Amino acid sequence: MLDKAPRIAVDAMGGDIGPRVNVPAAVQAAREGIHITLVGDEEVLRGELARLEDVSELPITIHHASQVVDMKEKPADVLRRKKDSSIQVACQLVKNGLADGVVSAGNSGASVACGMFVLGRIKGVERPALATIMPTEKEPVVLLDVGANVDSKPFHLAQFGIMGDVLARDVLGVDHPRVGLLSIGEEEGKGNIMVKEAYDLLKMTSLNFVGNVEGRDIFTGDLDVAVCDGFVGNICLKLSEGLARSFGRVLKRELKRHMLSRMGAALSMRSLKNFAKMMDYAEYGGAPLLGLKSILIVCHGSSNVKAVANATRMAATFVEKKSHEHLAAELSAHAELAQFGRNRA
Amino acid sequence: MLDKAPRIAVDAMGGDIGPRVNVPAAVQAAREGIHITLVGDEEVLRGELARLEDVSELPITIHHASQVVDMKEKPADVLRRKKDSSIQVACQLVKNGLADGVVSAGNSGASVACGMFVLGRIKGVERPALATIMPTEKEPVVLLDVGANVDSKPFHLAQFGIMGDVLARDVLGVDHPRVGLLSIGEEEGKGNIMVKEAYDLLKMTSLNFVGNVEGRDIFTGDLDVAVCDGFVGNICLKLSEGLARSFGRVLKRELKRHMLSRMGAALSMRSLKNFAKMMDYAEYGGAPLLGLKSILIVCHGSSNVKAVANATRMAATFVEKKSHEHLAAELSAHAELAQFGRNRA
Repeated sequence: MLDKAPRIAVDAMGGDIGPRVNVPAAVQAAREGIHITLVGDEEVLRGELARLEDVSELPITIHHASQVVDMKEKPADVLRRKKDSSIQVACQLVKNGLADGVVSAGNSGASVACGMFVLGRIKGVERPALATIMPTEKEPVVLLDVGANVDSKPFHLAQFGIMGDVLARDVLGVDHPRVGLLSIGEEEGKGNIMVKEAYDLLKMTSLNFVGNVEGRDIFTGDLDVAVCDGFVGNICLKLSEGLARSFGRVLKRELKRHMLSRMGAALSMRSLKNFAKMMDYAEYGGAPLLGLKSILIVCHGSSNVKAVANATRMAATFVEKKSHEHLAAELSAHAELAQFGRNRA
Repeated sequence: MLDKAPRIAVDAMGGDIGPRVNVPAAVQAAREGIHITLVGDEEVLRGELARLEDVSELPITIHHASQVVDMKEKPADVLRRKKDSSIQVACQLVKNGLADGVVSAGNSGASVACGMFVLGRIKGVERPALATIMPTEKEPVVLLDVGANVDSKPFHLAQFGIMGDVLARDVLGVDHPRVGLLSIGEEEGKGNIMVKEAYDLLKMTSLNFVGNVEGRDIFTGDLDVAVCDGFVGNICLKLSEGLARSFGRVLKRELKRHMLSRMGAALSMRSLKNFAKMMDYAEYGGAPLLGLKSILIVCHGSSNVKAVANATRMAATFVEKKSHEHLAAELSAHAELAQFGRNRA
């Protein structure tokens, strides 16, 4: 293909809602010039496209895939038995050079497994990392790994720092990302065994490493990348989402309780909407799986159109900026570190 | 002493503000019949007491301690070199039978160390756990360990479950506390190596063990006790506090921005205050260090009067309910488990 527009394969069957969300989301992205391949049941997808207006001229193609992955299926089973599932076919398209990146709101475990085994890892990467972009009081922060792996080794954490740095630069446009290591005290020497060793390795990198950061530092906006093991990161991500939702529900309940508050809430609606936006995790739409030879963005199963469209935009940005080349270059520049880390750990 | 009122030793010098917070807090508790020993610089404490009205008849005594622990001092140094510090003397009072429990807003690491080495651990407890009580949409939830230890073994986590259960029953008044294991998926078999083994051990206990819970389950109110390693728990606690503060600041900023919102906010103040209460971590005031022969409650360095007073009330409740006897009985009833866990881990 001579066309330079980024080509994104969308796992159109994935997610709790599926094509009814993924197709309109992909259409939004296509209207901005992103070349879309919708992967899934051809008849269903044609039907969904037909419901939308002015789509005939858009750069959208459909690639048929006969199987759908259930949200509860085990990743290993999907890899082995669902070769013609929309997520696995989408990854194959990239592997065969017919697309540049994949977006999926389907079964996260299956998506990560397809990414790792079909797209393949960048040389030197043992553990790819899922990176989430979270809202803060100021600019967003990258948190990784949020659950691609658990029981990481120290040098995996150091690689997460390198990959998060590239994401913050290319996708968030941060010049010298401040990279912190999530721990339980700011001083060097605080943390568990894994984090203490990761600290030493991160200090050796060319990153703008600001040392240990604590849970309370994530949302102030004074940090660009927070590095942690996937067990810790997944709990942090879900805890943040849960807490934001709880606050929202309590605030709504309280505002509805009294007549005066209801009137007040009506008057302050504009402010409350801005407040709600801070809690809107659809803003970035999905979590890129970093460390693969191409980009895969994993969205929440409950994603809405906005979230999947934003994830598709993020995948396109990743491709346009050649971020996977930057990733490979940075990881290769720090290859000794990985070797050193592997020996120690 | 023949008196049956609980006798609490307050580390009156501890915390960012010190006696100016601790003395009025202790006075509040004393007015409710709790017997207080203020530990610290006698002259300073007399001066603080003199600033308050109607204190002469209250059950308050002062016990002089000549040294003060700085917030940055290392726990080992405090243990060795500050034998006459307010926190160490407060623990000695309990050890010598002159008080039943200790409350401190001082250097947390030093407080935990003094608790472990001066008060001593319950037989069979290798790792005491700091338990925090967090607000949720419904009833509060106990989260432990929030940082007494890191690099826990699976059987430590099982013991945390047993200790959290006693706290939920005695202090929160929950009949059959629902105890969950913090992990990254609800199904059995999800998590890291440590958590998977802890799952098996918790299943063997007599607890109302509800299995794995995720970060998003903590704040819904459908759980009474969440068990985790101190590294994970400390990050969760600080992340929750940080996120709550960020939400508060953003909400305030947004409400102030427009004239209409300002008017609206004035009208809905009552609701917003109820909302703020959900985020008020002073409600329970402090984190009990569980697994010791007596109770020690560790408060935030930045605690206000309300927080230290509530922590003192919690210490008194712990004493009145004979919770340390319940802890010892439950841990002893599960002694085989600990032995089994120790062998496996």
